[in-house]
Amino acid sequence: MNKEEYFIKQFSNNKIIGDDGAFIDGFVYSMDAFFENVHFKKEWMSLKQIAYKSMIVNISDAIVMNAIPLYALLSVAIPKSYTNEDLKELVKGFKKAAKKFDIQIIGGDTISNEKLDISITIISKTSNPVLRSGVKKNDLICHTGILGSCKEDLQKLFENKEVSKKSKFIKPKLKPYFFYEIAPYITASMDISDGLFFELEKLSKASSVGFEFFNEIDESIGSSGEEYEILFSFDEKNLEKINKIAKKHKVDLNIFAKAIKGKYRTACKNHHF
Amino acid sequence: MNKEEYFIKQFSNNKIIGDDGAFIDGFVYSMDAFFENVHFKKEWMSLKQIAYKSMIVNISDAIVMNAIPLYALLSVAIPKSYTNEDLKELVKGFKKAAKKFDIQIIGGDTISNEKLDISITIISKTSNPVLRSGVKKNDLICHTGILGSCKEDLQKLFENKEVSKKSKFIKPKLKPYFFYEIAPYITASMDISDGLFFELEKLSKASSVGFEFFNEIDESIGSSGEEYEILFSFDEKNLEKINKIAKKHKVDLNIFAKAIKGKYRTACKNHHF
Repeated sequence: MNKEEYFIKQFSNNKIIGDDGAFIDGFVYSMDAFFENVHFKKEWMSLKQIAYKSMIVNISDAIVMNAIPLYALLSVAIPKSYTNEDLKELVKGFKKAAKKFDIQIIGGDTISNEKLDISITIISKTSNPVLRSGVKKNDLICHTGILGSCKEDLQKLFENKEVSKKSKFIKPKLKPYFFYEIAPYITASMDISDGLFFELEKLSKASSVGFEFFNEIDESIGSSGEEYEILFSFDEKNLEKINKIAKKHKVDLNIFAKAIKGKYRTACKNHHF
Repeated sequence: MNKEEYFIKQFSNNKIIGDDGAFIDGFVYSMDAFFENVHFKKEWMSLKQIAYKSMIVNISDAIVMNAIPLYALLSVAIPKSYTNEDLKELVKGFKKAAKKFDIQIIGGDTISNEKLDISITIISKTSNPVLRSGVKKNDLICHTGILGSCKEDLQKLFENKEVSKKSKFIKPKLKPYFFYEIAPYITASMDISDGLFFELEKLSKASSVGFEFFNEIDESIGSSGEEYEILFSFDEKNLEKINKIAKKHKVDLNIFAKAIKGKYRTACKNHHF
């Protein structure tokens, strides 16, 4: 068990913890850290891109719970060396994401620090949350998009190679309209931030199911983190509806497994550097 | 203008930012960072004390807005060197504060980092928020408790001297029951985190008033930060009621100024180290 799991386990008397966000009385509350040298290196992205991505990875949590993000709180620790121009770039990134998803930045905290460390809280609204615990036996298991490029790009960045400006690692692409439309027809969902294998382990735990894979999934696919694609499950009877919605929104679907009795554990190590 | 102010100003089209928390539709959302080497050094306090204080400084924001804290989200960056025992101590501190104020810890994020950096979001409820913008001309200006000991204790800690275990710097003492009872009779409030002079500057800005001081306030008092005493204003007609409530809760009141037309600016430098 790593430290993160151990720490969270200390709060495990609390049933709310365990989804991308906490659902309470029609609201979803989620919070994610985006820290320099943990989630990014400053050489990899512009300040605007860093701020934008820090918002997007948080907004992703809201979307995959079928919640509409409303408000954001930002805790931003800023290196002393940053100029006002640097701060403006950061603000541009935060505002760009807020504008795109119609979110109001309502407050937070800023402090002076050695490195750029961002924590964000998103407050969202939903009348019908989709949780991780809803997978039923025989449900189909599916993820959006093509996995693997984020791991490749991360490797390139470590080797000081360039990555495409369109890299999902730099600029994750969320699919809110697609997701809100399939939400009534699915049983569980979460985003792929730590890598498919790790998310499947969490899904297995939350829903008490195992998975029967249709094809073997290569580690280069299953351990690619920060994809921010959507992992979800649904009853086969809704396959046609979901396929139609995916087509409409030009979203690739990859149905790769079926839920079975049992439990799934990955042997892979966590990707965090 | 320091970086913090500059950064916040970039969002200043947003009228909600400017109080200890953001009041929206009956809820107050507040978020504060509590970072190693910014707000504390690890030699100064036990991990339990650090976690406890990180919660208390956040809960303080809710109380001074007349809101009842309900939920907390924790973003905790944990040094790789920490043992499971260390994590248990941290959890004890978070849980102690949560229990004391009947708050549910509903989620957050944990990551591995070089130092212990905590950001906390508190979600609170109020039907009648008290803001910073409510000071009226001729209102009396008051703070609870005796100021100055936190600056002294901080100085001692920097000199590697011991401070009392009861030090307010280590363990701030909030006054929720006193505050909720005076709330209907006051016009504005905030907590004293950056020091009285700085809070007065914020109060002046938010309420467009100046202050006439009854006595000169020494810098050792006015620039003592992290006091978590309450600064508030009220109409003189409520003086007797407020005095009575203070007596009942054994809270010291220090009525030190009167709101006048004008504007207040401090010449002191911010206390953050």
